[in-house]
Amino acid sequence: MDFMKPETVLNLNNIRTSLVRMEDTIVFNLIERSQFFLLPSVYVKDKYPIEGYSGSFMEWILLQTEKVHSQVRRYEAPDEIAFFPDQLLKPLLPSLKYPPVLALYSSEVNYNQEILDFYVKHIVPEVSCGQGDQEENSGSVSVCDVECLQALSRRIHFGKFVAEAKYRADPELYDRLIAARDVEGIEGSITNSTVEAMILERIKTKCETFGTDPSLKYSQKQQLKVKPELIVGLYRDYVIPLTKKVEVDYLLRRLPDNN
Amino acid sequence: MDFMKPETVLNLNNIRTSLVRMEDTIVFNLIERSQFFLLPSVYVKDKYPIEGYSGSFMEWILLQTEKVHSQVRRYEAPDEIAFFPDQLLKPLLPSLKYPPVLALYSSEVNYNQEILDFYVKHIVPEVSCGQGDQEENSGSVSVCDVECLQALSRRIHFGKFVAEAKYRADPELYDRLIAARDVEGIEGSITNSTVEAMILERIKTKCETFGTDPSLKYSQKQQLKVKPELIVGLYRDYVIPLTKKVEVDYLLRRLPDNN
Repeated sequence: MDFMKPETVLNLNNIRTSLVRMEDTIVFNLIERSQFFLLPSVYVKDKYPIEGYSGSFMEWILLQTEKVHSQVRRYEAPDEIAFFPDQLLKPLLPSLKYPPVLALYSSEVNYNQEILDFYVKHIVPEVSCGQGDQEENSGSVSVCDVECLQALSRRIHFGKFVAEAKYRADPELYDRLIAARDVEGIEGSITNSTVEAMILERIKTKCETFGTDPSLKYSQKQQLKVKPELIVGLYRDYVIPLTKKVEVDYLLRRLPDNN
Repeated sequence: MDFMKPETVLNLNNIRTSLVRMEDTIVFNLIERSQFFLLPSVYVKDKYPIEGYSGSFMEWILLQTEKVHSQVRRYEAPDEIAFFPDQLLKPLLPSLKYPPVLALYSSEVNYNQEILDFYVKHIVPEVSCGQGDQEENSGSVSVCDVECLQALSRRIHFGKFVAEAKYRADPELYDRLIAARDVEGIEGSITNSTVEAMILERIKTKCETFGTDPSLKYSQKQQLKVKPELIVGLYRDYVIPLTKKVEVDYLLRRLPDNN
């Protein structure tokens, strides 16, 4: 996928390959998170007092990371959406001038608050290897959370490319559905249950494979680093539905002349 | 491994478990890096002009990351060593007061410059999926490099715990070797060729397992994301020898009364 070549970006095969590859990153990152305890304190607003800042400890690291990355143009890329778009810094380097692929204003389709919510409320408590706090790991855990959140955000907002590619494959259908604000019709047109079942099956296999020590394959000690059914549930209940929300939201803003 | 409980830190079984687990992180991170081209420009000093800074683009991101992480006490942890120890910021939170485990001044044993050198010169050219530059990926690549470097640094400097545990298992032997500055004798006493061969075998299996899409197991399209022999070579030629250097260097500074 080459964002400098729009024709490669809207090829559904390339999009699919990218989405499959992102599964590996998400599974790898969640396996890393599973080494640590829950550490509930890092998610509580102002639990760690930091001068001039109000928010959770983990969000502080997320914000600082976004500030650094914004200076090297991360959020100019069409596949990157910030969690704190209002607090980014100016790039230190000249803009890259990506050729336009998505509709104007597509960066307003931002589900990061929802992603942050389900990640903290539903994923972290399940994926961590123990309950309580371990203050000396609060930094490691938060750095790991930032990577998980960025990977999930990129995966979910990739729905915009899926939506644009589907639009271009049948503009008449979508112009009609969009003009009628037919959300159910749009949802129906972008849903493919067979593909969704395949994704979940593949996620399960990846968790089993990446989450075991392959050198212990035949020993009795084998223990999975992360529960496959948990990550399958994460995809089924959050990643797939939120991706569809992104697609619908994107399409509802899309005008026939793409601007 | 719980750095608040020194007795768990110097247990050789715990150290071994931690080292084995770090292999997964290193392999995961190198697989992530292998998605990208080489991007030689990100490693060239001042190739991207950034005001008030002299160094490579990748090192700029590494430095900014260390500045953020130093504010949340990363480099207070006995298993973390900064690449830019002179440019860190003051922690925003009160110190954690880790119980002492390693000898005083052990943080002076810092092989990060060597790690940076071999990573940029020997690993990146081999692990990347293509030669040239792709400017729009310079940020992603550098972020990925930072994660690889931090994982390698932590793994290699863990040699200090190995060395301290070995010292405590036979203080008389080591006091004698250290007093005589007998580097060869120390090297001999910390080398275990059988264990080294096992590590290399395990790394190979991990690359094969984590670097394939398990859902394609029986198809003909199967392609490894990263060459196992490359990562095995990385361990054989750099990680293991540098870890031994860390061990020897640590022991040479260790005095009988541990301070």
